[in-house]
Amino acid sequence: MTPAHSPLASTPEPPYYVVIFTSLRTEGDNGYNRMADRMAELAAQQPGFLGIESARAASGLGITVSYWNDEEAIQAWKAHLEHAVAQRLGKEKWYAAYSLRVARVERASSTIGTNISKD
Amino acid sequence: MTPAHSPLASTPEPPYYVVIFTSLRTEGDNGYNRMADRMAELAAQQPGFLGIESARAASGLGITVSYWNDEEAIQAWKAHLEHAVAQRLGKEKWYAAYSLRVARVERASSTIGTNISKD
Repeated sequence: MTPAHSPLASTPEPPYYVVIFTSLRTEGDNGYNRMADRMAELAAQQPGFLGIESARAASGLGITVSYWNDEEAIQAWKAHLEHAVAQRLGKEKWYAAYSLRVARVERASSTIGTNISKD
Repeated sequence: MTPAHSPLASTPEPPYYVVIFTSLRTEGDNGYNRMADRMAELAAQQPGFLGIESARAASGLGITVSYWNDEEAIQAWKAHLEHAVAQRLGKEKWYAAYSLRVARVERASSTIGTNISKD
């Protein structure tokens, strides 16, 4: 079993939705890490939130994948007041470039919750 | 403009497909990085390949997102002989846990190819 606090998200059977946010950071922290932590915490409190996974490579490329019940949940999170402020600051100072994609998960497989050790 | 070799993928207008592979590595390299580089190189040569983005956090969480024209391209890449060997080795020794999701990208926005610098 994967620990409850595994960085791998545990999601229900498809279909559900995913937001893929990929970015290149500007130089320096400038309050970014504090805001990123706050946004992850806040996202997890939203209706329809299913999970989030995030990684940033030494090259500067960051990938955040968040999972949602439906498009409505994604739209509501996008419009959340505190998140809107973070989005504006991201465009202004934290991201040199980014892409955002919304996709419908059609199939999934995972070792999460299964025992993959070999006896 | 983002450089041609930007780690951010440049993809066409949706719809297209995405494979989201998230993983936790086992300890040690054990040939992993060499194979990961080879698989990225090989994937890029497949029909229907649109792009790939990859990042691994200090926590050990890795996210690789690859973009494809359609489901057929994804199936063909999954069945590729050299890739099949890598998948088997991944299960046997490189990954402590992983999830794989296939999703249909419905909308996207990006700063790639646009000038986001402020004059």
